[in-house]
Amino acid sequence: MAGKTVTACLLIIGNEILSGRTQDINLNFLAKALNELGVRMTEARVIPDIEATIVDTVNEVRTKFDHVFTTGGIGPTHDDITAVCIAKAFGTEVMLHPEIEARIRKREATPEIIESRLLMARVPTGATLIDNPTGGPQGFQMGNVYVMAGVPMVMQAMVGALTKERLGGADPVRSRTIGAYLGESQVAKELGILQDKHPDVDIGSYPFYRETGYGTNLVIRGTDEAELDLLKEDLRALIIGMDAEAHDDGI
Amino acid sequence: MAGKTVTACLLIIGNEILSGRTQDINLNFLAKALNELGVRMTEARVIPDIEATIVDTVNEVRTKFDHVFTTGGIGPTHDDITAVCIAKAFGTEVMLHPEIEARIRKREATPEIIESRLLMARVPTGATLIDNPTGGPQGFQMGNVYVMAGVPMVMQAMVGALTKERLGGADPVRSRTIGAYLGESQVAKELGILQDKHPDVDIGSYPFYRETGYGTNLVIRGTDEAELDLLKEDLRALIIGMDAEAHDDGI
Repeated sequence: MAGKTVTACLLIIGNEILSGRTQDINLNFLAKALNELGVRMTEARVIPDIEATIVDTVNEVRTKFDHVFTTGGIGPTHDDITAVCIAKAFGTEVMLHPEIEARIRKREATPEIIESRLLMARVPTGATLIDNPTGGPQGFQMGNVYVMAGVPMVMQAMVGALTKERLGGADPVRSRTIGAYLGESQVAKELGILQDKHPDVDIGSYPFYRETGYGTNLVIRGTDEAELDLLKEDLRALIIGMDAEAHDDGI
Repeated sequence: MAGKTVTACLLIIGNEILSGRTQDINLNFLAKALNELGVRMTEARVIPDIEATIVDTVNEVRTKFDHVFTTGGIGPTHDDITAVCIAKAFGTEVMLHPEIEARIRKREATPEIIESRLLMARVPTGATLIDNPTGGPQGFQMGNVYVMAGVPMVMQAMVGALTKERLGGADPVRSRTIGAYLGESQVAKELGILQDKHPDVDIGSYPFYRETGYGTNLVIRGTDEAELDLLKEDLRALIIGMDAEAHDDGI
């Protein structure tokens, strides 16, 4: 696509996603939120709570992408190893962040609970905080790696603290959708021709099978809104030319 | 964990997942289905519809894991490039699979539509079919790579055609869950001690924040059901010892 692209990779850290216990919804939320900040999610990985895997994966993707976001593993229990892993990936140690520590010590609790909570104050030396306006656990940024919670409500609060400026975001991608009760095979050839004509736009075709019938939604994505509008009219003409009805915003 | 572990990596191929247009539900379904077949999903990646990325990723993960499953990109349009990419990854070409071709030619359609549909008959030379009992598109197996549809209904039908024998599956992982209105910090230390005592069991703790209050679900996973039952009683005692109620199957 045209213009500068700022890329991101999401690392979802958690056995509970890989076992099927938990349905991830963070990827979808973050993909949309990052796009509004001008950052494109280009890859995502789900990896287990294993130190060597986390360290190696972080070190691989932080050089391949402009930004890396992680979710999960920042709580106070034995399987919350993300902070330590990020520190290892950057060749440094964890320290207690004074701001988080002060917040934790303000809440009354037994010494044993405070000791456990302080595990959530660990950040790699040199990290800066990602604020959590809800007052829960804090995320942190180390280099181009943004470490966030796995619990969706907490993760979403942290994403709200990120800005286009902080991420050096470019233009967001915009989309147009048009649908028809036509099989993909009926439009496949013409779509390929239109895709060749518009290399800066990404044309996707998504078949569906519903009680109302089977059909296809066509989604065009790009940063140039005028081009999207023109191309959408080409798609409308293609659908109408096949004696089908064109459904704006898809079916 | 004890015993032989058969590992799998899922590759979700599709710009629509990375853009946030579509919420993936295939990972969750496949994780649970594979576990029943004795195969453990150990990693998953979401990658875009870019040939070089798909080829390189397939070649990386097919040596790292016992099995690789892919979803998406097997339709008849320009962005359906999975079959060609798998062929390239294995250093071979695509061919029209005679069985799929015969099925397609049986359905009446214009020559142009048949030409598009035949794109769905392409498999790498040497591939075997993954049957789709619903009569829709067919998946295929090339070496240890299983190529399936992205549309959940179609993907699920294909998974139904896989067997423990075909995948060489081992023992499925079983789980027990117990929940309490206790913060993670309150149980963190004891959980760590129990985890050290049971290295073959994976103890996960998952905090939640709901209208009814905040609390933690504890999930233990392993292949030895007797050990899981014993450990669950240890967790129950831990919860009750903190003057909380233990909720079987979680909250």
